[in-house]
Amino acid sequence: MTNLKDIETDKQSRNPNENGNGLLTVGHSVPRVDGADKVSGMARFAADLNLPGLLHARPVLSLYAHARIKSIKTDAASKAPGVVRVVLAQDLPIKAGQSESRKRDPLAKDEVFFYGQPVAVVLGETEAAARDGAELVEVEYEPLPSAVDFLKAMEWDAPHVKNKPSSGADAEASMHNAAAGGAKEEEKIDLPPNVSNHSHIQRGDAEAAFKEAAAISEHTYRVPGVHQSYIETQSVTAAPDPMGGMVIYTSTQAGFYCRDEVSDALGVPPNKVRVVTMTVGGAFGAKFVLIEPLAAALAKLTRRPVRLNYYRMEDLLAANPVHAGQIYFKMAASADGTITAMKAKMIFDSGLYPGSPFWALSMLGLCYRVPNFDMEAFEVLTHKVSTGAYRAPGAPQTAFVTETAVDELAHKLNIDPLEFRLKNCVVEGDKNNNDQPWPRIGLKDCLEALGRHPVWQNRANKGKDEGVGLACGGWGGGLEPASALCRMDSDGNFTLQVGVSDISGVSTSLKMIAAEILGLEADKVTIVLLDTDAAPYAGGSGGSKTLYTVGAAVQKAAEDAAEQIKKIAATELEAAPGDIELKGGKAFVKGLPSRSVDFVKVAKRSMSRTTPVLGNGASAQRTQAPAFAAHLAKVHVDRETGDIKILNYVATQDVGKAINPDEVEGQIHGGVTQGLGWALYEQLVYTDDGALLSGSLMDYTVLNAPQVPEFETILVEVGSPYGPFGARGVGEPPVIPGGGAINSAIFDAVGVRMTEIPMTPERVIKALHEK
Amino acid sequence: MTNLKDIETDKQSRNPNENGNGLLTVGHSVPRVDGADKVSGMARFAADLNLPGLLHARPVLSLYAHARIKSIKTDAASKAPGVVRVVLAQDLPIKAGQSESRKRDPLAKDEVFFYGQPVAVVLGETEAAARDGAELVEVEYEPLPSAVDFLKAMEWDAPHVKNKPSSGADAEASMHNAAAGGAKEEEKIDLPPNVSNHSHIQRGDAEAAFKEAAAISEHTYRVPGVHQSYIETQSVTAAPDPMGGMVIYTSTQAGFYCRDEVSDALGVPPNKVRVVTMTVGGAFGAKFVLIEPLAAALAKLTRRPVRLNYYRMEDLLAANPVHAGQIYFKMAASADGTITAMKAKMIFDSGLYPGSPFWALSMLGLCYRVPNFDMEAFEVLTHKVSTGAYRAPGAPQTAFVTETAVDELAHKLNIDPLEFRLKNCVVEGDKNNNDQPWPRIGLKDCLEALGRHPVWQNRANKGKDEGVGLACGGWGGGLEPASALCRMDSDGNFTLQVGVSDISGVSTSLKMIAAEILGLEADKVTIVLLDTDAAPYAGGSGGSKTLYTVGAAVQKAAEDAAEQIKKIAATELEAAPGDIELKGGKAFVKGLPSRSVDFVKVAKRSMSRTTPVLGNGASAQRTQAPAFAAHLAKVHVDRETGDIKILNYVATQDVGKAINPDEVEGQIHGGVTQGLGWALYEQLVYTDDGALLSGSLMDYTVLNAPQVPEFETILVEVGSPYGPFGARGVGEPPVIPGGGAINSAIFDAVGVRMTEIPMTPERVIKALHEK
Repeated sequence: MTNLKDIETDKQSRNPNENGNGLLTVGHSVPRVDGADKVSGMARFAADLNLPGLLHARPVLSLYAHARIKSIKTDAASKAPGVVRVVLAQDLPIKAGQSESRKRDPLAKDEVFFYGQPVAVVLGETEAAARDGAELVEVEYEPLPSAVDFLKAMEWDAPHVKNKPSSGADAEASMHNAAAGGAKEEEKIDLPPNVSNHSHIQRGDAEAAFKEAAAISEHTYRVPGVHQSYIETQSVTAAPDPMGGMVIYTSTQAGFYCRDEVSDALGVPPNKVRVVTMTVGGAFGAKFVLIEPLAAALAKLTRRPVRLNYYRMEDLLAANPVHAGQIYFKMAASADGTITAMKAKMIFDSGLYPGSPFWALSMLGLCYRVPNFDMEAFEVLTHKVSTGAYRAPGAPQTAFVTETAVDELAHKLNIDPLEFRLKNCVVEGDKNNNDQPWPRIGLKDCLEALGRHPVWQNRANKGKDEGVGLACGGWGGGLEPASALCRMDSDGNFTLQVGVSDISGVSTSLKMIAAEILGLEADKVTIVLLDTDAAPYAGGSGGSKTLYTVGAAVQKAAEDAAEQIKKIAATELEAAPGDIELKGGKAFVKGLPSRSVDFVKVAKRSMSRTTPVLGNGASAQRTQAPAFAAHLAKVHVDRETGDIKILNYVATQDVGKAINPDEVEGQIHGGVTQGLGWALYEQLVYTDDGALLSGSLMDYTVLNAPQVPEFETILVEVGSPYGPFGARGVGEPPVIPGGGAINSAIFDAVGVRMTEIPMTPERVIKALHEK
Repeated sequence: MTNLKDIETDKQSRNPNENGNGLLTVGHSVPRVDGADKVSGMARFAADLNLPGLLHARPVLSLYAHARIKSIKTDAASKAPGVVRVVLAQDLPIKAGQSESRKRDPLAKDEVFFYGQPVAVVLGETEAAARDGAELVEVEYEPLPSAVDFLKAMEWDAPHVKNKPSSGADAEASMHNAAAGGAKEEEKIDLPPNVSNHSHIQRGDAEAAFKEAAAISEHTYRVPGVHQSYIETQSVTAAPDPMGGMVIYTSTQAGFYCRDEVSDALGVPPNKVRVVTMTVGGAFGAKFVLIEPLAAALAKLTRRPVRLNYYRMEDLLAANPVHAGQIYFKMAASADGTITAMKAKMIFDSGLYPGSPFWALSMLGLCYRVPNFDMEAFEVLTHKVSTGAYRAPGAPQTAFVTETAVDELAHKLNIDPLEFRLKNCVVEGDKNNNDQPWPRIGLKDCLEALGRHPVWQNRANKGKDEGVGLACGGWGGGLEPASALCRMDSDGNFTLQVGVSDISGVSTSLKMIAAEILGLEADKVTIVLLDTDAAPYAGGSGGSKTLYTVGAAVQKAAEDAAEQIKKIAATELEAAPGDIELKGGKAFVKGLPSRSVDFVKVAKRSMSRTTPVLGNGASAQRTQAPAFAAHLAKVHVDRETGDIKILNYVATQDVGKAINPDEVEGQIHGGVTQGLGWALYEQLVYTDDGALLSGSLMDYTVLNAPQVPEFETILVEVGSPYGPFGARGVGEPPVIPGGGAINSAIFDAVGVRMTEIPMTPERVIKALHEK
């Protein structure tokens, strides 16, 4: 993937000499703190911890989507060489919870509810021994009727899936998006037994608007089940702590949440569980808490360290992917190109427990002013693995639907698709679908930046079966309080202490924020991601909120440390604290750089005569910093094979302020790639009996390097009023517009509108035939 | 040891209903947080960490006080079953330091300088294998002339001991006593080669005062070398961290200092060493840093966890005990009982490196106003193990000398010894020997409390060969900046985070301080002693300063947390933060207890809508809180055997404010016991060749339970203006007056004054014969 540097970005932040913003570190690209360890293989992941005495856990998975367990024969497995123990559900020291969930019921008991559900765990001295043992466990099943297809499962007489409300899923959703759960449940309607959630939102008079419309787009769309496709599978090592209690080394996005869940499961106080958040090899919403309580229970049972890490097939079968959905969506516009109404019926398959992004209903039409709408969402339980979050939950699906409709309306009204979007797009002060006013946002700026791009400017000059299309999307952004500490050490450098996981490279940006405020180069600040015994509280990493919330806390912590340093230096220099400046590891009197004291001396003084410098900062952002992206694609469609070749791809995004520009671009690269994989290739395919057909990376297609197109990124910087240095979250937006942009380009190329994701060659051919 | 509760203490703090001070927790005895684990054997000490893959280290010790190492044969040892490696000095990955020290030269190279010096280490898969291996290491020595006796070593032509200045020893001294190093070195005099330090302080005209004196006491005293006699020997387990770097699990009094020393020795940045301060089984000044760099180097060399813990004999030979001293002391008084002058020549044996308490010179006459003095101190290096700190370094020695002289002057002038002390004792505003004014102190109050005690009141009614004597002593108290954090958790309880070691039970008092301020019972606060990656900075634990300095930081951290809670509650309750009170886990509007919000709700709100509650507090006490003690002893002296039987013992002490009275009494019990052991039994005895004769607890006599007399404690509470709730440090003072009190009682009983510690039966008999 070539990184064609964007001119605007270069001007703003590449060249320190031309930077002109007076910033020492922020805005200049700094290598990631985790980079060297990752590329050299030195980074430690949860499954790398070869703790001596380690036991290896291998699960035995269900071969049925729904069945009664008649018997489990463990004798042969137990006697196999190197097998230490075969553990069944009833052996686990897990406390019954108020609400059932995967975390509380990690092993099936009496009955299995999805294909791939863990039924037993074999513990071995080696992984090979455990694996061999797992093959010797004999489970006898009596198959039961199953509800696999979510549309059939919605029928009144479908086999019942156990309806288990899961508060955990809600908690995770709220870590992602501050607006989660904001959907109003105004009416009580009679719902089929497998429908676990329903939402209905209305504004104005949609029916009347549709009657008066000059153009209407109306389709029923299908979006696939997908897996988050992190490189590192679900991994945890649980070990009895030599200091007492239990240590959980885990690839989690949320250490404190994990602590609460594990302590709850084991029935011990939170302070008896210490969660160490490890290097995360990709998470994308799927790694809050899943197998940690099971691993902790196994370690508690055996009093030995236990490693549980899923093989790829197990991860595809039994982690927490996203399930398929169907969205009926109708949109109308008046002759002058004003969007007037939306109608929707959105149905999401949620698998065994609630947790689907049905609450993303209000994200339909997110980017536009729509005066009238009437939209409903349904969540359906099925005999499939339970669902998890996926980068920008609900947003790629709703944006694909919205952008396809918007593009169709523009074409029907013969209005330039960019002009149509610019006319209708939301700006500061417009109300969102929840009737809240948008704060300062950069959607229009992103669209305008795309409009200036040569690929758009020259869109008429295209070859045969080539097309240019665009789409936009946005993410409200999460909010969660956070705190941070900034400690001066004996060598005059700093330790920045936070309680977050790093799923995105955010550590580097966080230390840059602290360094900037302390007048230092970034390498003078060491960031430590502390365990839950020690860390200042922070919420989960996700929802494009870590930099926005924890970064704000870091900023305050560094400011607090700076104030403390200024006080000490003021006494040394016989000046007022307000007259002291910090730069280059020195505190000096403003305008008199020779009257200075260096940080080593300040540190020594703080530890001998005054007070240790420990900056404390907390943030509770009250206002979201929504971040928008607009993508432009030029494609060629092969009418023979249905193959779509991406010729150009341009991604613009309002990042508020790029703290570490290379890292921000890296996030966008990853997001665009993931979004294109979603649009074109990825899907979980189940048989009618609920067996997963796409159970390996041979069958489940994620983009590999040659499939990733060249693309350009344009960083737009519409500063957020509350983010550190104006920064907004950047993780979610780039995954959102891909499907819509490709679909618009396909239409421009060959005149068909796809309504099913992924837009595989087979489906393109089918669409061309139907045309 | 019976604990006869004192009436005054009972009145003040035993009965919550009669307490009357409005305090919820502080002043009420609370069980120690470490108590249950310690009495049930669950507490983890550094040597208890059975890390899988652990290697056991056994040292090979020198059999000479001074010799050249001609060869070390390791073949047989290396081939012994279970031996992994024999490590010599040149194998250690320890960076050469600017100043040589035991920490930097943990194994002898080419030459040994004391009997018991480690020469090699054998690493074994088991302790037995390592021990057997150590016996197979053959070291060939060529003996060299040695300087063992410190008085002989002071001679100009004595064999030279390598004079190695040790900044480390100074650093440790300053952790003990803020006044350390305050001795002025005004004159440059020619000193013999083995004299490593000299100090000389003067005031007024001592010679003239002696000429006019009505009474003079003049003796040359001998004080012994003693071992700190902790139950847990020096112990450390060093392990390569699964997260990178090195973890040091150690029985240290100073985690951050240990981190700096180990990182310096290994030549890595401080943030690559993580020090975990373990449960400490007694330290008394001897456990700052000693064997940690060696253990870390062994772990680095082998990439395996290494445990090094001394056997008792090794600890007596090769740890860091205190060496003997000689003090010539002359004191004069006028006829009206006013002390007029002091003269002293104090010599301390320091072993291989500087570090003796020669700087305690200014503690001679500490408790009294003395207008004229002329006093000198010398530190002498010898071919003996290097010296360490010992509870109240220099104070038991100087107090024994001072109190014996004071008592003699009173008797010579026919003035009641208590009256004499009350007339001369220092009070607020008097100047100490360093010309600094004493702050508010409780010395006089302690003496007066003793005077009211029946044992003193009825001192005339004594049996044959029985005597009553008293003595006092004081400790300036250490100062070192500290910080602390107080975090509210999801369950509405608190985690108090500190960076100190707990050598005294101080953890419980610290959490009581936080609980008091938060209006909670003590059990709602969990205290965690964090490792150096995570902890707010704090200095070493020692010098009776932990509660005074860290406690003040904890107080501020809790106050900060309380303010944050009040703000959140104020919004909930629609009141001003200033009108909110905290009590019983609720925040309520003053005077309206029904308008309240409980802490669980505050916690949830802080983690969802406002900011996480994290109180930050730092302290830098600028004024010492000197603490005084006065002891009263009634003894019977057996004229046949010289045996001294303690009939009554009363210890009064100004503790400022007893945060946890039972714990304070426990500290006093321990201190009195240790002081009596010092006065009567303990001594390190060396042969002329420097071999240790008292190399086991069969030969080195520490008090056992039947030898400990019944005693009473009287807590005097003269609040310190800056200590938390008025508290002063309590650890050092009770060890100080014992020798003087016993000696005064012996004189009262049989008319002899002992001048040599310990006051063994043999010496008592000798003194009686000489009389």
